[in-house]
Amino acid sequence: MVLERVAASVDEAGLWKMHEEMARFGATPKGGVCREALTPEDFDARRQFAEWGRDAGFVLAVDAIGNMFLRREGTEPDLPPVITGSHLDSQPTGGRFDGSFGVLAGLEALFALERAGIRTRAPIEVVNWTNEEGGRFAPGVMGSGVYADPSMLATMLEVPDKAGTRLGDELDRLGSILAPVGPVGARALAAPVGAFIEGHIEQALRLEETGNSIGIVTGIQGTRKFRVEVIGEEAHAGTTPRRRRRDAVLAAAWMVQALHRMMEDADDLLRFTIGVFEAFPGAPSVIPGRVRFSIDFRHPDDVLRARLGDAIRPLCEALAGPCRVQIEELQAAASVDFHGAAIEAVRHAVEIVGASHMDLYSGAGHDARNMARLCPSAMVFVPCEKGISHNEAENAKPEDLAEGARVIAVALAALAGAA
Amino acid sequence: MVLERVAASVDEAGLWKMHEEMARFGATPKGGVCREALTPEDFDARRQFAEWGRDAGFVLAVDAIGNMFLRREGTEPDLPPVITGSHLDSQPTGGRFDGSFGVLAGLEALFALERAGIRTRAPIEVVNWTNEEGGRFAPGVMGSGVYADPSMLATMLEVPDKAGTRLGDELDRLGSILAPVGPVGARALAAPVGAFIEGHIEQALRLEETGNSIGIVTGIQGTRKFRVEVIGEEAHAGTTPRRRRRDAVLAAAWMVQALHRMMEDADDLLRFTIGVFEAFPGAPSVIPGRVRFSIDFRHPDDVLRARLGDAIRPLCEALAGPCRVQIEELQAAASVDFHGAAIEAVRHAVEIVGASHMDLYSGAGHDARNMARLCPSAMVFVPCEKGISHNEAENAKPEDLAEGARVIAVALAALAGAA
Repeated sequence: MVLERVAASVDEAGLWKMHEEMARFGATPKGGVCREALTPEDFDARRQFAEWGRDAGFVLAVDAIGNMFLRREGTEPDLPPVITGSHLDSQPTGGRFDGSFGVLAGLEALFALERAGIRTRAPIEVVNWTNEEGGRFAPGVMGSGVYADPSMLATMLEVPDKAGTRLGDELDRLGSILAPVGPVGARALAAPVGAFIEGHIEQALRLEETGNSIGIVTGIQGTRKFRVEVIGEEAHAGTTPRRRRRDAVLAAAWMVQALHRMMEDADDLLRFTIGVFEAFPGAPSVIPGRVRFSIDFRHPDDVLRARLGDAIRPLCEALAGPCRVQIEELQAAASVDFHGAAIEAVRHAVEIVGASHMDLYSGAGHDARNMARLCPSAMVFVPCEKGISHNEAENAKPEDLAEGARVIAVALAALAGAA
Repeated sequence: MVLERVAASVDEAGLWKMHEEMARFGATPKGGVCREALTPEDFDARRQFAEWGRDAGFVLAVDAIGNMFLRREGTEPDLPPVITGSHLDSQPTGGRFDGSFGVLAGLEALFALERAGIRTRAPIEVVNWTNEEGGRFAPGVMGSGVYADPSMLATMLEVPDKAGTRLGDELDRLGSILAPVGPVGARALAAPVGAFIEGHIEQALRLEETGNSIGIVTGIQGTRKFRVEVIGEEAHAGTTPRRRRRDAVLAAAWMVQALHRMMEDADDLLRFTIGVFEAFPGAPSVIPGRVRFSIDFRHPDDVLRARLGDAIRPLCEALAGPCRVQIEELQAAASVDFHGAAIEAVRHAVEIVGASHMDLYSGAGHDARNMARLCPSAMVFVPCEKGISHNEAENAKPEDLAEGARVIAVALAALAGAA
């Protein structure tokens, strides 16, 4: 009965209103958001998150990479907290639900516990992870990565954006931005966590196509990310004969094509993307002396991912022609299978809520992959329109978001020991 | 005897010193310059140019596109002026001699006439054309283009740079920057010109390879410039299957390759360059929804250039795959052959100076191409080290620059009627 009361206390209209208010920060003319990590827009979103927490009486703490934790105290405060949440940063032309849903559904879950007057033994926290998207500062899933492995902290603080601004310098501004809202506690990295549950839009079509409103995520496919730099020589476009050219764009175009060809799989499971491609100096009448491009490569099969990922370097080297090529692997994440208490709590919560549901495997990476190294972790997917994501046209329905929040609220209450 | 005195009055050390002083504006750590049109660095160079002219008693006038004319008055001021000069703007990673040599050699020629105490019937002017390079504001050779065809003015004032700044807005700042130097007269566009001579570094290897110090330029090959925009759809790199992707980088890579293949000629005369290639939104885990790339295509043969240039659009359209492509032709310039009084004066000047010389055809475009539509025009090339240009490593020898200035000074004196 307790868990049913939790589910019944989720406020669909209230959750939708929070989404609308959050979408104002970095709103774009096309209805999306541009709220890259640690920009003024991200700081505005963080302040709003802190204000909502303060108004509800939750306690804010921030760790060394800027992850924000809003805590609803448990009756046994020394128990490790059960955590939920996701991220408020977005892609440069991102949507209103990617990341935001997980944070706001977590807040709504805590509000539901308040409304239902239910205490839990363990504390429950809603987290806003820093820089999940990785568009401004590479790599992504950075905040949860540093939380799970604090040895990465020093390196990540030095990461520059395109303009050369250090991540650590932007982060230094967070304290003074949050101070006016209320007290900000310090949170140790890698502090013990009881369980982690992340809500997220699916970013694919399977829920919409099958008419289910909840996806129980069984795992996340592995990723490898690379930065490729092709070095040629700048020269005059009008006077330099072909035989003397070292054209970095031409060499890079060969690589792009050949890599895509190598990565074509008959079952269309492999995900291979070159999202960044920049030529320097970038003037029409100068033969480009340098190209930088990114590689994002994902597949559930760890063996296949290792083999094909390792083939990227020799292929690029073979196609460099008169240019040189430098390849740096920025990130390698194994595929993760969720198991244990967290996913069991989600399965149970789906039954209590009575939600239509299916099991899903996640193509996208999420903070839950990092947290799965620390504690039992799980994810709850809700449908998004036509599967469109990382796009300003991203959309979702209020009733689906509320159903997701109900499942999360119930699972949290069960994991934290609701009484 | 008069023309020999002009040649003897050119000061090699003084000309070199002006090059060194000019190279401070926008100096880069690698020894080049970054002095794109109408940036603060370009304005600094323009102020220096005005100060040198004022100190020598020349009269400054500026036209509606920001071209600057320093005038040494003739004994018959109503005669159309003989003009020399080039441009002080540079590529983003440009060299110290491209453009600057033509302007500074022109100044040195006027100084030589002063030192020799020689008057000319027609006035002689040194011009600094606005935005020859076209890197920040496309297209290039803009200032001379507008001077020769004032109907282009309104369009050019609206051209934005990457940050969205209008060229016209930058130009509005020129008056207040030059005012402290001294009086600035207004110059009408397309005002009659007696003849135009442009000095320039060769930007190729033929003078160096043959040991000649002067190239008499017989013509300039024609150019066509295009902007290509490939429009796909932004989507999530981890969840979007290949069959649903509309990847603008992949489609553009096909185009880059196929265009280069189509443009391969056995005699290596054709110049085909994709200098700009940018993907948007430019984030590693977003399938790029848009690519913009530039095409710079040159060949002396007008018929071949028309045929191959017209094949660019259908080839790109055929390779767009699931994307769309938009192609805009920004500039089309026919090949120009220099003839008439100006090139004859250069040939005569080379004999008087006794310079080792050869005829050359210019691969690079220059302001002289535009001026050839208005008046007899010619160009004087001097060697540059290894033919390297549009590169910070660009270099030239003081003695070659001085030899070029002697030829220019003598040709100007003859054309303007030295007494």
